[in-house]
Amino acid sequence: MQNIIPPATEKLAWVMGPYQEPIATVQPGETFQVSTLDAFGNRIDSSDLDLAEIIQLPYVNPCTGPIYVEGAEPGDTLAVTIDEITITRDYAVSCLIPEFGGLCGTVYTRVLNDPLPQSIMLHPIGEAGMMYDPNLNIPLIPVEPFYGTIGTSPALEAISTLSPGFHGGNMDAADICPGNTVHLPVNVKGALLFIGDGHAAQGDGEVSGVAAEVPTTGIITVDLIKGHATPTPRVISDDFLMSVGNARPMEDAARIAFFDLVTWLSTDYGFDRLAAYQLCSQVSQVRLANMVDILYSVVAKFPKRYMVRS
Amino acid sequence: MQNIIPPATEKLAWVMGPYQEPIATVQPGETFQVSTLDAFGNRIDSSDLDLAEIIQLPYVNPCTGPIYVEGAEPGDTLAVTIDEITITRDYAVSCLIPEFGGLCGTVYTRVLNDPLPQSIMLHPIGEAGMMYDPNLNIPLIPVEPFYGTIGTSPALEAISTLSPGFHGGNMDAADICPGNTVHLPVNVKGALLFIGDGHAAQGDGEVSGVAAEVPTTGIITVDLIKGHATPTPRVISDDFLMSVGNARPMEDAARIAFFDLVTWLSTDYGFDRLAAYQLCSQVSQVRLANMVDILYSVVAKFPKRYMVRS
Amino acid sequence: MQNIIPPATEKLAWVMGPYQEPIATVQPGETFQVSTLDAFGNRIDSSDLDLAEIIQLPYVNPCTGPIYVEGAEPGDTLAVTIDEITITRDYAVSCLIPEFGGLCGTVYTRVLNDPLPQSIMLHPIGEAGMMYDPNLNIPLIPVEPFYGTIGTSPALEAISTLSPGFHGGNMDAADICPGNTVHLPVNVKGALLFIGDGHAAQGDGEVSGVAAEVPTTGIITVDLIKGHATPTPRVISDDFLMSVGNARPMEDAARIAFFDLVTWLSTDYGFDRLAAYQLCSQVSQVRLANMVDILYSVVAKFPKRYMVRS
Amino acid sequence: MQNIIPPATEKLAWVMGPYQEPIATVQPGETFQVSTLDAFGNRIDSSDLDLAEIIQLPYVNPCTGPIYVEGAEPGDTLAVTIDEITITRDYAVSCLIPEFGGLCGTVYTRVLNDPLPQSIMLHPIGEAGMMYDPNLNIPLIPVEPFYGTIGTSPALEAISTLSPGFHGGNMDAADICPGNTVHLPVNVKGALLFIGDGHAAQGDGEVSGVAAEVPTTGIITVDLIKGHATPTPRVISDDFLMSVGNARPMEDAARIAFFDLVTWLSTDYGFDRLAAYQLCSQVSQVRLANMVDILYSVVAKFPKRYMVRS
Repeated sequence: MQNIIPPATEKLAWVMGPYQEPIATVQPGETFQVSTLDAFGNRIDSSDLDLAEIIQLPYVNPCTGPIYVEGAEPGDTLAVTIDEITITRDYAVSCLIPEFGGLCGTVYTRVLNDPLPQSIMLHPIGEAGMMYDPNLNIPLIPVEPFYGTIGTSPALEAISTLSPGFHGGNMDAADICPGNTVHLPVNVKGALLFIGDGHAAQGDGEVSGVAAEVPTTGIITVDLIKGHATPTPRVISDDFLMSVGNARPMEDAARIAFFDLVTWLSTDYGFDRLAAYQLCSQVSQVRLANMVDILYSVVAKFPKRYMVRS
Repeated sequence: MQNIIPPATEKLAWVMGPYQEPIATVQPGETFQVSTLDAFGNRIDSSDLDLAEIIQLPYVNPCTGPIYVEGAEPGDTLAVTIDEITITRDYAVSCLIPEFGGLCGTVYTRVLNDPLPQSIMLHPIGEAGMMYDPNLNIPLIPVEPFYGTIGTSPALEAISTLSPGFHGGNMDAADICPGNTVHLPVNVKGALLFIGDGHAAQGDGEVSGVAAEVPTTGIITVDLIKGHATPTPRVISDDFLMSVGNARPMEDAARIAFFDLVTWLSTDYGFDRLAAYQLCSQVSQVRLANMVDILYSVVAKFPKRYMVRS
Repeated sequence: MQNIIPPATEKLAWVMGPYQEPIATVQPGETFQVSTLDAFGNRIDSSDLDLAEIIQLPYVNPCTGPIYVEGAEPGDTLAVTIDEITITRDYAVSCLIPEFGGLCGTVYTRVLNDPLPQSIMLHPIGEAGMMYDPNLNIPLIPVEPFYGTIGTSPALEAISTLSPGFHGGNMDAADICPGNTVHLPVNVKGALLFIGDGHAAQGDGEVSGVAAEVPTTGIITVDLIKGHATPTPRVISDDFLMSVGNARPMEDAARIAFFDLVTWLSTDYGFDRLAAYQLCSQVSQVRLANMVDILYSVVAKFPKRYMVRS
Repeated sequence: MQNIIPPATEKLAWVMGPYQEPIATVQPGETFQVSTLDAFGNRIDSSDLDLAEIIQLPYVNPCTGPIYVEGAEPGDTLAVTIDEITITRDYAVSCLIPEFGGLCGTVYTRVLNDPLPQSIMLHPIGEAGMMYDPNLNIPLIPVEPFYGTIGTSPALEAISTLSPGFHGGNMDAADICPGNTVHLPVNVKGALLFIGDGHAAQGDGEVSGVAAEVPTTGIITVDLIKGHATPTPRVISDDFLMSVGNARPMEDAARIAFFDLVTWLSTDYGFDRLAAYQLCSQVSQVRLANMVDILYSVVAKFPKRYMVRS
């Protein structure tokens, strides 16, 4: 493997934008290794810490990047295949962050109620799975790692790694896992790919705002689709075509996801657009990826088995 | 079987409320048969009809009911087990209704754009599944029937059968299917149960606004949980505890669903409330049931395997 | 004056629907007197009460009605002119209701945070205005009474008097005040008008959820516009044409309001529809009427001075 | 006047961020002149143009800046007083942009309906006011210029000049007009102020997405409030304290605005926080500033006459 990309620890990426020097350059078709810190910069190793000291916005969710992809031009699509994700620590971190999460007042959904207390949990990870709490007699949670955050640089904006958007970002979609390919828009020369926020496990919606956060080493293959920029992030698995909508309110995220899925079925797979809409109403699946981030993320999934075969 | 309840065709229920005479009375513990019309009152038998004539609000989605449950008192919960659903027609109806659906302007999300055209599709149903379109070479869609609409009477309100809410109603949640038990609040003497809107198949979100609509005959068992009214509809399956949130915007529906799930884990299953919140963030699943009705419906699901065992 | 309508205290209206006997009948063109209780049924006369005892849903916001209007047929519009509102008590009531309001968790926007404490304030009303708090040295608040709640019966639904909607209801719009005329749809024979929820004063949005609540006696004139049902409540003053949108999320309420205003300018006042849209973008005013009720209410206002004169 | 700042036409600011060289430096307390292009870069001079050529995202709404303020440090507040705004062209531009606006499908609220047609209008501006359309006999519209866009740099992000946010930005609030002072957070050394998007007139909500767009020359005075960063933009006029909330859905914007207003009354003006909440419910005003931008903007206004005097 030509490239082995560690997190640029001196110059972690807290925003996805065109203003940071690439930390590595890769070729279309290249397979390389990339390492990521967890969403807290690997700084939580005990449940006794004060989260207010560790979480100092905007210095949360450091990503590895930008990774420059040779030949990528604005108007292309970057296809990122996740070949492998290895968790590089024997525990995951989860926590309750006051004023962040799906069931509490936040900086967006402001309330006068007193904030929830903080809490930190360390979940031991072993061969057989992840232990929620050594004190509770509940079964191990399967470890199914994925990247919570993956995206490319916007043309001019520099967007917090805490936010998802049309450029990808902090989508917290468990479909961005080994075996699947993510399509991201190329907005600047070299695409500038950012990856981070490994999750050992996560429930749909990531309701408390934090998953089982882990550092990772992954094997990634990038490729280019020239001359067509994906309008919103897409994911392709063996079984599904998936479009991701990132917006608030959540129905706008769902609309973006389904609008793109219907459009995709129509432009690439021969469906009449309104027939695709009607068919989606009968066979699509939806993942609520996150209900906690700066924008909400909804994944609309079309089962490939229903793709028209001529 | 003591009771065989056909739809009261002369007095169909278009609202769920306390103002209509019961069409049948059942006992707690009783198993009975109930028949339902499809959401269009079984009036669509051709793709050449004019939807504007058939869909005249508020006369859409006729339900069978009210069914009076002996002994049900305000403050109880009605537990409705779906034993069986049989589709009683050899085709399902789907359609595109202008100004209704997830990807068009509606009476709520108003736009000045021209409305989409109407369309009607009849999907033949056979032993092996449902055919989307005889002209398209796509695989049969599995038939997995469920009730799109099930609810009890509010105390004073009479709510359109097109709307979901804390009383149940038009949730379009595929989890309300054979084998599962639905908990609904009892707000009036006799509970007054309403059932309808059979679906042969439906994608998550029901994005075009219409599923594969069918008339049905079902076998139902009702029971009472005395002295505790469920705060929002709940569903119990072999594998999941589920809470349904019905609200707009969609994040409010998700919040209601998860709030209830967390509360339920805490009051009935021994979890600390904030620990349940954190655990849900790692293991819960979510179904986006509908993104098209008067309120949106989100189902938060907790895998029973993680229930604490003492 | 022929009709003097007190609140039907034995049979207060807690829902707007077709299921309650009219308490009075009036003629089109008739001017009559109507009395209303405050939103708490006049039951708060001290700041030491326990709100949990007084506020027992759905028994909040009792309205006076239904008032039957002779000759009103479905498809007409009821034009209700507010001639006068007299406050019939020497104090207004305001309070903080835990889990209700714009800046706290509610049954819709669910949070795990502890609820806010309750509080009750009685505001003395005199000739010169309303006193916020005898202990604080702040100027008197002008008394500008209006009806927080006014609506007609839906065709089949019975909607809580706490909710606004296409039928009117709990809009909390200060434009529904003496001198102005409200247009409401007629959905059932006799229209069935409901009025209540007098406010001595209210800020835009009614942010804490409660205004300065008062009982009233009002002078009202009703009339009919035959053969055209207003699609959403409208208000006409000397200076403005106003359309009210009631929905969640709040942008949907704003869209409904502006869609109707633009349509109204186009159908009744000779504007091209898209020109009206563009002109509204330059001269319209908006009142955020409520950000706390079951649906939010937004009033879009077009200054009459810009109406095209031929 | 020491500084006369023209728009840096070779390096217009399309994002507000820390990555662009300052085009001028000013001192705290200094009064200076600043010129701005209109939202379309002054490129529309005829109603016959093709908007698709002119509006090429992200190159819309060019701002003048960054302006470096000596001594500004992260954690301070920049107080920007608008002394004067002069419109420097004899017409304003308005238009309908397909897939942008409050009453049509957009990239966020996606619909399958056909987009609206484009249109451009040039509104002549004279001494007596602005003419909407020479062909329509409607009164002149008063010219009341304000800045649609004003903001400071975030710490790391570079945010499109089309978006409002906690940093200010494209709020489209008519309160940002001569005589008023805007408080903006200082997130980076020098604050980095950006100004643009002059409006000759604008209705509340800016419903079609475009106001009466004009180039301007303004007189501005900046000052610093050391050691306290405003949590969201604030505006102070002779009569009101105002807090601006920028978010989606619109209720979140309203919550942010009122939360800050209540907090401000409590921390700076001696009100008990919950009493301020209750008082706002009786006397506040709200401006819906925009219902069309990347985030919606709501201004909550507290009348200064009710400020507690000791």
